[in-house]
Amino acid sequence: MILRIDRWQTELPPPSDPDPRGASIVQELMGGKFGEMSTLMNYTFQSFNFRNRQGARPFYDLIANIAAEEYGHIELVAAAINAMLTGAETKGARPRNSQQFIGGGKSALPQDSMGKPWTGDYVTATGDLVEDLTHNFFLETGARNNKLKVYEMVDHPAARALTGYLLVRGGVHQVAYARAVEKLTGADLTKMFPSPRIPTDKIPECRPHIERGDHLRLYRFSPDDYKEIVAVFNGPHPETGEDLTVIDHAPEGFPPVDLPPEPDVFAPDYAPEEIAEIARKLREAAGLPKEPSGVVAANGGNGSAADKVEAR
Amino acid sequence: MILRIDRWQTELPPPSDPDPRGASIVQELMGGKFGEMSTLMNYTFQSFNFRNRQGARPFYDLIANIAAEEYGHIELVAAAINAMLTGAETKGARPRNSQQFIGGGKSALPQDSMGKPWTGDYVTATGDLVEDLTHNFFLETGARNNKLKVYEMVDHPAARALTGYLLVRGGVHQVAYARAVEKLTGADLTKMFPSPRIPTDKIPECRPHIERGDHLRLYRFSPDDYKEIVAVFNGPHPETGEDLTVIDHAPEGFPPVDLPPEPDVFAPDYAPEEIAEIARKLREAAGLPKEPSGVVAANGGNGSAADKVEAR
Amino acid sequence: MILRIDRWQTELPPPSDPDPRGASIVQELMGGKFGEMSTLMNYTFQSFNFRNRQGARPFYDLIANIAAEEYGHIELVAAAINAMLTGAETKGARPRNSQQFIGGGKSALPQDSMGKPWTGDYVTATGDLVEDLTHNFFLETGARNNKLKVYEMVDHPAARALTGYLLVRGGVHQVAYARAVEKLTGADLTKMFPSPRIPTDKIPECRPHIERGDHLRLYRFSPDDYKEIVAVFNGPHPETGEDLTVIDHAPEGFPPVDLPPEPDVFAPDYAPEEIAEIARKLREAAGLPKEPSGVVAANGGNGSAADKVEAR
Amino acid sequence: MILRIDRWQTELPPPSDPDPRGASIVQELMGGKFGEMSTLMNYTFQSFNFRNRQGARPFYDLIANIAAEEYGHIELVAAAINAMLTGAETKGARPRNSQQFIGGGKSALPQDSMGKPWTGDYVTATGDLVEDLTHNFFLETGARNNKLKVYEMVDHPAARALTGYLLVRGGVHQVAYARAVEKLTGADLTKMFPSPRIPTDKIPECRPHIERGDHLRLYRFSPDDYKEIVAVFNGPHPETGEDLTVIDHAPEGFPPVDLPPEPDVFAPDYAPEEIAEIARKLREAAGLPKEPSGVVAANGGNGSAADKVEAR
Amino acid sequence: MILRIDRWQTELPPPSDPDPRGASIVQELMGGKFGEMSTLMNYTFQSFNFRNRQGARPFYDLIANIAAEEYGHIELVAAAINAMLTGAETKGARPRNSQQFIGGGKSALPQDSMGKPWTGDYVTATGDLVEDLTHNFFLETGARNNKLKVYEMVDHPAARALTGYLLVRGGVHQVAYARAVEKLTGADLTKMFPSPRIPTDKIPECRPHIERGDHLRLYRFSPDDYKEIVAVFNGPHPETGEDLTVIDHAPEGFPPVDLPPEPDVFAPDYAPEEIAEIARKLREAAGLPKEPSGVVAANGGNGSAADKVEAR
Amino acid sequence: MILRIDRWQTELPPPSDPDPRGASIVQELMGGKFGEMSTLMNYTFQSFNFRNRQGARPFYDLIANIAAEEYGHIELVAAAINAMLTGAETKGARPRNSQQFIGGGKSALPQDSMGKPWTGDYVTATGDLVEDLTHNFFLETGARNNKLKVYEMVDHPAARALTGYLLVRGGVHQVAYARAVEKLTGADLTKMFPSPRIPTDKIPECRPHIERGDHLRLYRFSPDDYKEIVAVFNGPHPETGEDLTVIDHAPEGFPPVDLPPEPDVFAPDYAPEEIAEIARKLREAAGLPKEPSGVVAANGGNGSAADKVEAR
Repeated sequence: MILRIDRWQTELPPPSDPDPRGASIVQELMGGKFGEMSTLMNYTFQSFNFRNRQGARPFYDLIANIAAEEYGHIELVAAAINAMLTGAETKGARPRNSQQFIGGGKSALPQDSMGKPWTGDYVTATGDLVEDLTHNFFLETGARNNKLKVYEMVDHPAARALTGYLLVRGGVHQVAYARAVEKLTGADLTKMFPSPRIPTDKIPECRPHIERGDHLRLYRFSPDDYKEIVAVFNGPHPETGEDLTVIDHAPEGFPPVDLPPEPDVFAPDYAPEEIAEIARKLREAAGLPKEPSGVVAANGGNGSAADKVEAR
Repeated sequence: MILRIDRWQTELPPPSDPDPRGASIVQELMGGKFGEMSTLMNYTFQSFNFRNRQGARPFYDLIANIAAEEYGHIELVAAAINAMLTGAETKGARPRNSQQFIGGGKSALPQDSMGKPWTGDYVTATGDLVEDLTHNFFLETGARNNKLKVYEMVDHPAARALTGYLLVRGGVHQVAYARAVEKLTGADLTKMFPSPRIPTDKIPECRPHIERGDHLRLYRFSPDDYKEIVAVFNGPHPETGEDLTVIDHAPEGFPPVDLPPEPDVFAPDYAPEEIAEIARKLREAAGLPKEPSGVVAANGGNGSAADKVEAR
Repeated sequence: MILRIDRWQTELPPPSDPDPRGASIVQELMGGKFGEMSTLMNYTFQSFNFRNRQGARPFYDLIANIAAEEYGHIELVAAAINAMLTGAETKGARPRNSQQFIGGGKSALPQDSMGKPWTGDYVTATGDLVEDLTHNFFLETGARNNKLKVYEMVDHPAARALTGYLLVRGGVHQVAYARAVEKLTGADLTKMFPSPRIPTDKIPECRPHIERGDHLRLYRFSPDDYKEIVAVFNGPHPETGEDLTVIDHAPEGFPPVDLPPEPDVFAPDYAPEEIAEIARKLREAAGLPKEPSGVVAANGGNGSAADKVEAR
Repeated sequence: MILRIDRWQTELPPPSDPDPRGASIVQELMGGKFGEMSTLMNYTFQSFNFRNRQGARPFYDLIANIAAEEYGHIELVAAAINAMLTGAETKGARPRNSQQFIGGGKSALPQDSMGKPWTGDYVTATGDLVEDLTHNFFLETGARNNKLKVYEMVDHPAARALTGYLLVRGGVHQVAYARAVEKLTGADLTKMFPSPRIPTDKIPECRPHIERGDHLRLYRFSPDDYKEIVAVFNGPHPETGEDLTVIDHAPEGFPPVDLPPEPDVFAPDYAPEEIAEIARKLREAAGLPKEPSGVVAANGGNGSAADKVEAR
Repeated sequence: MILRIDRWQTELPPPSDPDPRGASIVQELMGGKFGEMSTLMNYTFQSFNFRNRQGARPFYDLIANIAAEEYGHIELVAAAINAMLTGAETKGARPRNSQQFIGGGKSALPQDSMGKPWTGDYVTATGDLVEDLTHNFFLETGARNNKLKVYEMVDHPAARALTGYLLVRGGVHQVAYARAVEKLTGADLTKMFPSPRIPTDKIPECRPHIERGDHLRLYRFSPDDYKEIVAVFNGPHPETGEDLTVIDHAPEGFPPVDLPPEPDVFAPDYAPEEIAEIARKLREAAGLPKEPSGVVAANGGNGSAADKVEAR
Repeated sequence: MILRIDRWQTELPPPSDPDPRGASIVQELMGGKFGEMSTLMNYTFQSFNFRNRQGARPFYDLIANIAAEEYGHIELVAAAINAMLTGAETKGARPRNSQQFIGGGKSALPQDSMGKPWTGDYVTATGDLVEDLTHNFFLETGARNNKLKVYEMVDHPAARALTGYLLVRGGVHQVAYARAVEKLTGADLTKMFPSPRIPTDKIPECRPHIERGDHLRLYRFSPDDYKEIVAVFNGPHPETGEDLTVIDHAPEGFPPVDLPPEPDVFAPDYAPEEIAEIARKLREAAGLPKEPSGVVAANGGNGSAADKVEAR
């Protein structure tokens, strides 16, 4: 089971100029064959289906733990898409992905960049450990390819912050699976790095994360479990030679941006202030503090971007 | 983001007589339109896409928190399916769901009971709060219908333990969304309970959970967030009149059963003992204890069921 | 079985300026999850599968009768799309929905606004009456959401006439299903109106239909059957308090617009006049009147819009 | 638009021995590529999208009118499937099509015989009249093939009555489209009959319909429209040489069988008598006669088959 | 089995101005219901599944041999798409088909013009010879329709060269299947030509192929097999009256254009020269000539178009 | 383009006892994610889309050439399925894959073992050479896994002959791609063999092919092209240490078995002798020899198995 923490693994900028076409491209990182739903669900099912866990514990822990991180990734992709759609014109809109408006309320969908839904067919969980790890190494390679391309195609600040972060973290998973295959078979997949053959540190938006050392760290996303990841994730980073490290807890994270309402798509309502009034009363009746208890980014709902939106 | 805990929300029996046809039916609760992947992903996307969270915090917290519980449900469905497949004959097998063998290693798939993959089309996240809550109430009704039917169709102990638990917990979600709609609109959906119109306590496998009070409790699946669920989840249970309660933490849970290897489908390997030997060495090299650090159910990998499997 | 009447339930304007991108958006109301094919097929299958009809006759009649009206709705959506595509340039076209040109002859498709085909997965027909009615209430809510959004996104006169009409009629179905649930369970879903929370009469194109009283009327689409709908569809309208009424026959309707040929997409032919000549002879040989017997709108094939098309 | 008549185009036997596996095969005639949903929707969309109707009226009328008949065919396929499922065991069931139980209440689904949903991809409506008619001729050929095979594979009385009738009526449509192509191009497709090359009158269940002359008749399914079908549907039947005839109204039809409730799948309820009681009161309150107004087959809900079901 | 020849069946121009939107439309001819993957796979499966080949040899040979030609057609469609994408901007791109960039490296996909993947559902291989041939005649008619439309919609030189060629060759297949049906049943489908009713020789890009006589020739794509095609493919061409001819070998073909690398989508690499260097060494080590042994079009990789690309 | 040769790459036994359920399982090797349609289409598209072929010729040649071999593999899978279905009862049949009967004539479909159609989504052709080769290595690993499982699950002689052969040939491709990756990056994937970890020579049906040396040979499937495969496919076999070899032509192959007609599914006709008679006349009219010119296996259409079929 999981505990959920209402924070983002990285910081994303608040809404600025809306970019619906860009947002439709970023969907590939959500619902594409190599998107984050795929990494999440592949590793999740592999961990659920893992037989003889005790006999192969370090590998089980590795897959299960990376699965946990991926949940945070789909959250980030959604956040970036939603930010890019905030403030977009509905009247007369003919967006690439019309369902971000019609199906959602200017929001992220479990679809790829062509509007095709994510499907369980994208999951490979054979139960054969070497095969699954080989697959995962390849999946992360494909995911890196797609992130690099979306980075290139979409220059909206939210998309760039997203891809910059995901490239670094996905790179860590690519290394982790390469190491796992090597530990099991002796094949030195690390010689294949970087794949695609563009070094991550050439991407400006990746550099702050690299400078912070995040390209070397595998976080342990659990209060007490998955401790044997250290038995696999170690040794030198294939590109830089620095030591790989396990951080024995989750990253601290950042409060999410609270996006302004979009009444023209009824999100969260045609008259959001009425809901707010009801919420206030419910909170009071429940003996909760007057102000909402949740923590959101200071620059989110009240900053300049939101003002711009409200000024429409 | 999430933290993952390597425990199950409820106890499931260890493998006994294999039941591949039953396991293919239980898939409906995994990847069906009304399965647990659907409840998980519907609420997850609704929470990701929630606009003006601060203005509608109790409802945001409710949806986000129930999403967290659902992750534990797909884990349980997978576990039940895997248990039912453990020990199944591969030689000459013509199972209803052949891909549980060919695609997986006698394991759960993101498919429904007809082998169709789960798809993002099953997600409704409109951003309109009243509409999403109406949807969720309906979704839980459909999910309850399907659990009742699978209960009836499959009498394998793992399937019964699974459906018994899920019926009680899904019932809580059905109540939660009914209450949320009522708080927002005044419509008393609680008059529709139970729906389908068979009382949950008529199901023997539900009774222990009801006796423990689990039909009244909404657990908070977060270290520090989603505290405003109390503002919505309160009042009398629609069927029993007892008080609904928020438990301010996750349930303690149970250690998972560690399923025996199935070498004839290479899970985790054709020669699992070789992987175990490698794992031992890696653990040693990493300075970990000699014994695997993970906790699994005492009756799982070593009990009579597994013995039976090994004796094949 | 059915009898077909070659008239439209409402009047739609003849072709004016072509709007292929708008036409691609309107497809959501045809083949989307909440489109008219979905309402048609959900109610049709529910009526086909209805067990113990005699014991629940008023509800059977309600569902079967609304299904009949929905057939007229897919007809209208198709008509609006075809009108918007009439006269569109084929040469050099790069439309959002290329298959409206390549697969059809500038015509409507059983697809949604992203070009995904309608699928039987969109049908929920559980046989459980309360559940199906709950579903239908929700489905109409989702459909209303989508009509409102398409209204906002597309301002072509045909799209506006379409959505104006469908919003009023869909609203009647939403009320009908709410009443049905209330009659069966006592839950007063009418408190949820309007959902989404924008009153229908704020839409200018809805007003003529409201002024005519069409928001209060359920037509009986059958010569002799489905007479028990009066037992469910009665009482006050949830928004206006006016009395709901059953009209004991179908609306009179309007002759359809006969769209001009589009020879560049071979509709109905590269040389349509040759077909017309053959048709004339066949009519003569069969002893039919010289002029086509069918009635079409006076302003359709010969009016200014068509002239404009021909002048290309 | 349509008027719906609560009668079947042919008589089907009441439930007898349940045959869930047979029912799963018959689904091909519902939701398969060559099933009745395909014929219905192909002709419906072709008629909606027909350009220059006045200039090609006899062909428009032909397609539109056959579309109307097809609605009655999906109704019959559903009825046969439902009859075959009536009385089937739910407890411990492992049916070929589990969703007939789990998704529906022992009822028909918009799926094919492998459980794949019908999809809009099965619709071809190019707008090119000769091409669409060529397609329709081929579609009816494929449909005839599939009916013949289902006839052979499933010998349940309901399936045989269904296929016997559909083979005769589909044969008429095959002839109609062949004649239409011939009228337009001169190509004598009638030389291709029968296709597949087994004469319809070799099927015992077809013979009563042939003896009645139903293989020669095209019914006009409309109060006042589609009168020009006589200009196309005429001449000798390709196999028998008898004269083709247009019947200027719909067939009288037969009252549908009212299937007994199946409480174990909640159809229409876990306690159907409660719904019946509510229905009675609603009828009374609406001033309707005490007995249900609908007409159902005398041998349906009360006959020996239903008794057998009740005796379970 | 097959032998592959690294030549194209017709000449296509080297890359000129990139046209990603046009390339997305041309995809319909690849992965659409009536695209070349469909013709290839329909005839391929029909030939694989052909029963009693010896008893129906001329027809088996016809289908198997046309299947072989179709492989060359998917090759040409891919080549045209790739040419149209060569040199397209990646930075800031928002193409109609984003997956041509993200999934591929500015390259062709097994999808249609709306980005939907080709599916096995598009294959009809019933085993009934008359039915399959009827289907194939219709399929070629639909394919001709789509080629004509893509011709009209896309005027890029590569698209025009492609459609000009495919229209002529597809026309030959349409004739071949019409003749086959006629030989088996006597129905003179040749009266339906041309279908759609626009003569092929009205298309300027078709004329060189017609002048060369390619509209009359069926090539035998096999060293020694499928010799009985002459027993079906003979007689006069339905439009021109000229004699149909079998050419007893494959066409000579043309060397393919070698497209320049697109490093910004990593095709074939971010640093293609490194791969070239490796390739050189491998060739040397294997004792191969210093220069690549493959033959490519002289005007391809080095001509003005490529220069233009490189000059970006 | 291709030349087609009407011979099989390996010998398959003639029909013996029909095994429809086994045939439905073998479909996974045809249309599954890791089936032969996937290997065929992945490599075919990669070769079509290959940029800068001259600069990376040995790798282009390798992929293009293996694609050619895969065509022969889908032919073999189809042949095995068809053999297993020959003689199967249609009357009363309730097969796992009903569409092998209803859609085909007891024949192979482009579907997987659950009846899901093969889809273009299974193709990965990124254009990035290292990534595509990594993918292909993984794809062959997954394909080997699936072949091993189908081998285990289905013991029909045709299935065993098929999987025995495909395991050996797929193993060669797995080696080829591993070598290619190694040549490009230095990573020694050969250490991962065998994967899954069961040696191929433990499978009795593989041994004759291994003894013949077929596990070491890459055939060149082209009259004159793809000669640079020798630059990649060389060195020692990862499991046996023997030298890998390129055979500079295609294997000789075996004449295909000509399967008997199945008139009850109209394959090739309800009255196949009529077609045979027509074929004879056509052959005569074309001046062909009296006997069919095609070569088929001596033991196929006339042997004991066919006799058994005929004797039904």
